[in-house]
Amino acid sequence: MKLVVVGGNAAGMSGAAKAKRRVPDMDVEVLEAGPDASYSSCGIPYLVEGLVPESDALRVLSPDALRKRGIDVRTQTRVVAMNPYTKEVVFEGPDGRDSIHYDRLLLAMGTRARNPFKNGQLPGVHTVRHLADGERLLAASKKWKTVGVVGGSYAGLEMATAFRARKAKVHLFARSRLLSDMDPDITDGLPDWLESAGIQVHLESKVKAFHGKDHVEAVQSSADVPVDGAVVAVGIEPATEFAVKAGVGSTKDGYLLVDDQMKTNLHDIWAAGDCVAAKHLLTSQPTPMPLALPANRMGRIAGDNIGASAATIPGPGAFYAGAVGTTVVRLYDLAFAKTGFSEHEAKREGFDVATSLVEAPTKAGYMPGARDMAVKMVADRDSGKLLGVQMACPESSALRINAAAVALQSGMKVARLAEVETAYAPPFSPVWDPILVAASECAKALRA
Amino acid sequence: MKLVVVGGNAAGMSGAAKAKRRVPDMDVEVLEAGPDASYSSCGIPYLVEGLVPESDALRVLSPDALRKRGIDVRTQTRVVAMNPYTKEVVFEGPDGRDSIHYDRLLLAMGTRARNPFKNGQLPGVHTVRHLADGERLLAASKKWKTVGVVGGSYAGLEMATAFRARKAKVHLFARSRLLSDMDPDITDGLPDWLESAGIQVHLESKVKAFHGKDHVEAVQSSADVPVDGAVVAVGIEPATEFAVKAGVGSTKDGYLLVDDQMKTNLHDIWAAGDCVAAKHLLTSQPTPMPLALPANRMGRIAGDNIGASAATIPGPGAFYAGAVGTTVVRLYDLAFAKTGFSEHEAKREGFDVATSLVEAPTKAGYMPGARDMAVKMVADRDSGKLLGVQMACPESSALRINAAAVALQSGMKVARLAEVETAYAPPFSPVWDPILVAASECAKALRA
Repeated sequence: MKLVVVGGNAAGMSGAAKAKRRVPDMDVEVLEAGPDASYSSCGIPYLVEGLVPESDALRVLSPDALRKRGIDVRTQTRVVAMNPYTKEVVFEGPDGRDSIHYDRLLLAMGTRARNPFKNGQLPGVHTVRHLADGERLLAASKKWKTVGVVGGSYAGLEMATAFRARKAKVHLFARSRLLSDMDPDITDGLPDWLESAGIQVHLESKVKAFHGKDHVEAVQSSADVPVDGAVVAVGIEPATEFAVKAGVGSTKDGYLLVDDQMKTNLHDIWAAGDCVAAKHLLTSQPTPMPLALPANRMGRIAGDNIGASAATIPGPGAFYAGAVGTTVVRLYDLAFAKTGFSEHEAKREGFDVATSLVEAPTKAGYMPGARDMAVKMVADRDSGKLLGVQMACPESSALRINAAAVALQSGMKVARLAEVETAYAPPFSPVWDPILVAASECAKALRA
Repeated sequence: MKLVVVGGNAAGMSGAAKAKRRVPDMDVEVLEAGPDASYSSCGIPYLVEGLVPESDALRVLSPDALRKRGIDVRTQTRVVAMNPYTKEVVFEGPDGRDSIHYDRLLLAMGTRARNPFKNGQLPGVHTVRHLADGERLLAASKKWKTVGVVGGSYAGLEMATAFRARKAKVHLFARSRLLSDMDPDITDGLPDWLESAGIQVHLESKVKAFHGKDHVEAVQSSADVPVDGAVVAVGIEPATEFAVKAGVGSTKDGYLLVDDQMKTNLHDIWAAGDCVAAKHLLTSQPTPMPLALPANRMGRIAGDNIGASAATIPGPGAFYAGAVGTTVVRLYDLAFAKTGFSEHEAKREGFDVATSLVEAPTKAGYMPGARDMAVKMVADRDSGKLLGVQMACPESSALRINAAAVALQSGMKVARLAEVETAYAPPFSPVWDPILVAASECAKALRA
């Protein structure tokens, strides 16, 4: 019984490991296009910043360690085609083109960074998706004094602050707002905050091209901005062409469609991770959710179900509850966190919403270090249930988002959340936690 | 329409303010036994430590500010009797004994500190319950070089660390374990931790008396321990004698019984706060819950219902969902946090439990400052639902308890909690949050 896993990162490795644990005599082979498998791509900004001293720290398990666990990993091996009828995948590896037979297939190729700019392939222009990208960027950027970061979402902000922490002069270019999945009333202070930290922010900027001469680049914005190098972080796209071509069901953007057990429409083929559009908990609609925890979880569920399908005595399957999009990003000592939908996202999904926006202290007002934080809460007028929470807060308050995330995923009504008993001690919270204050105001808005 | 509130702190003032907001022409009078109303007693340890520079910072609203809001507060006014038939309370105030008529009565006297020791009234021996106690202690202790703290629960630990932070030599005496509401497997490292911070911990010590000569005291433990002064924090008891005598229903320990709307058994009389045994969410049993948030909340609910009972057009009442006991205490840069029941508490309540105990990193393992934290989870075998979570962790992880608190109060099954999508970014969490790891292990224990 052979399981072939395409993609050797979060979802792929979680799936491989889980299937192997469930059916120990399964033959598990992972084909990874890049030079590394099993690493933390989310750690790359901290590698670039210098907080993580070397890239090896981001490697979770080496190919050798994986082999010892009975999982064979072939890196530098890119799958280029598959045939669901003969059950074969075709790949290009270090020794040329070859093919391999599978009994079960897990598709977990993830995504690649978009780079739609003219001269985007110039040597000083980097995208950061894989560990090798991060290593290349780290090596190339050692002498950069001025850096252009294109992209105002999480990855762009993390890279901009990482370079700024290294004392580089940083230009951050965003096509519209920063963190545009969040609502403006939560993020509007962010550009000023970044400017005060020494990052030059260019909003609504139309970067189109890079101009290169030796290794000095210039970003074409409204005016050209000379930089020593640039990082492009303007989004991702699923690396699924060969699968879609072979008939795996997908969204129009190429994200693979799966059922609640991570099974695709094709026989013996599962898919998981960033390349998938799995069910959103709040809408039940297929929704790409390129986040590390959902990717690991989807992989694990796929592996569990692959194991169940291969076991002599089939056990119970595993089901995916659906993701909601819980995120947090640190910008120096500030954090922006979110779970579920922002107001504009909820409206786009057709919800009739009530909202609250509060400022509340992070701890008892008389304690040293007490600061204000902002919480925005979005609720569904029909059901009274929580749809989303956004926070802009000191770093030390960021974990508050998890209380909101649990409330949202339990289907809790906002009025009930306002009644929850949270932990209070003066160094940690005011008596009424900011989440409770926001819930109380949102419950009032629902009644209005 | 006259509302008399007995007790001018968390529950009493919340009730007074809420009733006044709901029925603005209500005549609201608060009788407070001590010299202060409306202050944060939880801030006293930080006042003693010196983190809060002066006691005025702990005063929330002055009697004058309250009067401006239409709430009359008489301090130094101790209620000594009440007559529910003539609707009168009798008090001893600055001008002697007098009585006052009420149309509605809110009993919110709180508790007083127990001090069962021989010579417990010596001038160098202090209890800390009211702000005036804290001020007296602060003034008296300025020259203390060696301090004895009797009591190993939250308050005792907070006072011991406060004095130690002031460089005093501290002896901490506990009758049994420290934080004995938590399970030993979470707290067992605590004595060593306190010793390493310079606090001498005397476990299973039988303090019986103080011996005084001038202001130098000695605690009689197994052996006498000479100290310059002592703090007694061995628990509290409800200050409800006059109410119980007048027929207000109570537990055998004197905590007042209320319904879900904070109404007592007597006509036009409500009760709220630390002096009450309200419904526990997990058992529906009357359970004292002397914590600031439940006290404020109960007061608010009582005030709301008092207002509703007095309004010309009665509106909807407010209901108390029940408390679970969510607590957190900081000991230097460590925190101990809890929601719901510990294992021994759950068993005492008759639950058949499954548990997990995990150590998990607080953030991505490669990030600077990543440390391990312990999470213990307790679940009900019958329902699969969460009964309690305990954590021993770095201070920066303490807010994780609120995610568990929300899960518990939503009636979430442990298996579902293991599937929740929490926030991940390397500075804040590993991919699998410690709460998820504990839930996953506890779900396994439930299946075993």
